[in-house]
Amino acid sequence: MKAIELTDQDDPRSLALVETDTPQLQDGEVLVKVHAAGVNRGDLLQARGHYPPPPGASEIIGLECAGIIEDPGTTGREKGEEVACLLAGGGYGEYVAVPEGQLMPIPEGYSLTEAAAVVEVACTVWSNLGMLAGLREGQTVLIHGGAGGIGTFAIQLCKQLGATVAVTAGSAEKLETCRELGADILINYKEQDFSEELTGRCDIILDIMGAKYLKQNLRSLAEDGQLIIIGLQGGVKTEINLGALLPRRLTVRGTTLRARSLEGKAEVVRSTVENVWPLLADGRVRHHIHATFPLSEAAAAHELLDSGEVTGKLVLEA
Amino acid sequence: MKAIELTDQDDPRSLALVETDTPQLQDGEVLVKVHAAGVNRGDLLQARGHYPPPPGASEIIGLECAGIIEDPGTTGREKGEEVACLLAGGGYGEYVAVPEGQLMPIPEGYSLTEAAAVVEVACTVWSNLGMLAGLREGQTVLIHGGAGGIGTFAIQLCKQLGATVAVTAGSAEKLETCRELGADILINYKEQDFSEELTGRCDIILDIMGAKYLKQNLRSLAEDGQLIIIGLQGGVKTEINLGALLPRRLTVRGTTLRARSLEGKAEVVRSTVENVWPLLADGRVRHHIHATFPLSEAAAAHELLDSGEVTGKLVLEA
Ligand SMILES: NC(=O)c1ccc[n+]([C@@H]2O[C@H](COP(=O)([O-])OP(=O)(O)OC[C@H]3O[C@@H](n4cnc5c(N)ncnc54)[C@H](OP(=O)(O)O)[C@@H]3O)[C@@H](O)[C@H]2O)c1
Ligand SMILES: NC(=O)c1ccc[n+]([C@@H]2O[C@H](COP(=O)([O-])OP(=O)(O)OC[C@H]3O[C@@H](n4cnc5c(N)ncnc54)[C@H](OP(=O)(O)O)[C@@H]3O)[C@@H](O)[C@H]2O)c1
Repeated sequence: MKAIELTDQDDPRSLALVETDTPQLQDGEVLVKVHAAGVNRGDLLQARGHYPPPPGASEIIGLECAGIIEDPGTTGREKGEEVACLLAGGGYGEYVAVPEGQLMPIPEGYSLTEAAAVVEVACTVWSNLGMLAGLREGQTVLIHGGAGGIGTFAIQLCKQLGATVAVTAGSAEKLETCRELGADILINYKEQDFSEELTGRCDIILDIMGAKYLKQNLRSLAEDGQLIIIGLQGGVKTEINLGALLPRRLTVRGTTLRARSLEGKAEVVRSTVENVWPLLADGRVRHHIHATFPLSEAAAAHELLDSGEVTGKLVLEA
Repeated sequence: MKAIELTDQDDPRSLALVETDTPQLQDGEVLVKVHAAGVNRGDLLQARGHYPPPPGASEIIGLECAGIIEDPGTTGREKGEEVACLLAGGGYGEYVAVPEGQLMPIPEGYSLTEAAAVVEVACTVWSNLGMLAGLREGQTVLIHGGAGGIGTFAIQLCKQLGATVAVTAGSAEKLETCRELGADILINYKEQDFSEELTGRCDIILDIMGAKYLKQNLRSLAEDGQLIIIGLQGGVKTEINLGALLPRRLTVRGTTLRARSLEGKAEVVRSTVENVWPLLADGRVRHHIHATFPLSEAAAAHELLDSGEVTGKLVLEA
């Protein structure tokens, strides 16, 4: 089959379509013919050698896709069924092997391309804000990078759950997109310290910056507030003042979807389909695709995402 | 009335009985004649000026007591009723004003002195391990300072909940006490780095050391592990590697009981009486009183607790 690989291991821009082996199915996996694969920031990291796939996962980049079952393997699935897939890797290939627990139906009314744009963001946002943090109506949520792939989805989902939503973004234009998606409090992180505006106000923070924002995030939390760190774009190591945690009973968590066990991923997938798919079906939460590229132009898609000019998601099409 | 106060604000050893005003009741409070008051490490900190009472609370030291209702105020309680009390302060006085939500029955078969020894530890341990961390059968819990007031109680409660219990303590003798109380894994923190023995094994850690143990605690957590920090005996500021949190989905929390709202404390008290009092009544969990002192000798009790020679609790008697 064909798949995107680095032709030069030291050059993240050397992504190109090459001939490689079609994946072998393990027990409980199906072979999916990929129609479309979402691009994630994690993919950029992996191309740079910073985010190796978990043991046993495909070496091919790509954390989500949608396509058609080519070989149901030992599962009871039907050949020809359309599915969306949460992947530990492999989305940038012609075919990918997917554990059955990571298959999702195509959301009602969605094309395969649209489906490929929502799998990773829906599972990430729901598993953290819904399943883990237990976001409730009336709470205030801060979403860093509100105009990104995760952010554009998280704003809408939080509004549907009845939250007040604060966001950070790097330009007035991006903040305007956030406002259109429902965000209530708009902060340009290049012009303003968000923690001044939000001191003690946030019940939940979905963070992608890590070290750089730790102190300001803690300052922004309300009593019983939870900081959930899913990205480390601002570094990993920093000083923490534990004395800030105790009186307000603060929680700091870190999570990655990719490192979860098969059972853990299956649980996330099940809960996401149950709780989020109905919101997609009737348009209460929408996909937000910035652009699509042919799979062969993955390098260009990575370059665009890296430029910071993207609002929402990029998708590669076979 | 009489109460223990610092006769010299700069000398924590100057605790002595002095004449002071009897507390005025606020709406919803009862006046309790104190029979016995537990001694907590927080009391030592307060005597040193490091742990000021929350706004509105008594300036008198003392976080727990048992005694007899002298004046039910506007509540429907009976004068003469025996009660155990969770306090924001005031236990080291002849009388103390207590919000009704912080009154507990005397555990079945307990004397007032015994009751005064379990209120703070039961509420602290249950609110953190039961209510917050959701400790389940089969989990592994690490309790730092297993032979202390909190520790001796936590070991027993965790065993009753079906956990495997690891403890740290500073001597073989103290570890032997922990073993008798049910602890499964015994670590002398003066001789051994607990995180070597426990790498990746702990589902929950109840920590009292803060900064000093942060790195080792994170290393000791299993996937989805929770570190709950309730004491900062080893300092407040240190470096954190947030990269350690994400792949194992670790949680770091800090809490204090004393800073909770009236409603928050009432909720803790209700849940503790419901879940822990039955275990006290039939002896599945026991109080662990090291020694009792007359209230007038509070200074000597503080000196003893400070010496590190105490196993379990000290109680002051009127
Ligand atoms: N742990 C997990 O399971 C998991 C899963 C998926 C994603 N993630 C992580 O989540 C993050 C977002 O992923 P994505 O796919 O949505 O990437 P993306 O679309 O490229 O978004 C990156 C975002 O970072 C924002 N940003 C950059 N510097 C910032 C700053 N100083 N303050 C606030 N925001 C800043 C950008 O905002 P502007 O464009 O406005 O500058 C942009 O919205 C990445 O770090 C990714 O690794 C984690
Ligand atoms: N946040 C809250 O709501 C709350 C409520 C109650 C208590 N606390 C805190 O919990 C802690 C214990 O309180 P307590 O009343 O039980 O005090 P305690 O009886 O005086 O116990 C102190 C404990 O610290 C242990 N310790 C000292 N250095 C240690 C080290 N390097 N490693 C491991 N353990 C060490 C001692 O162990 P050895 O004796 O074996 O040396 C002892 O067991 C205190 O920090 C207190 O402030 C917090």
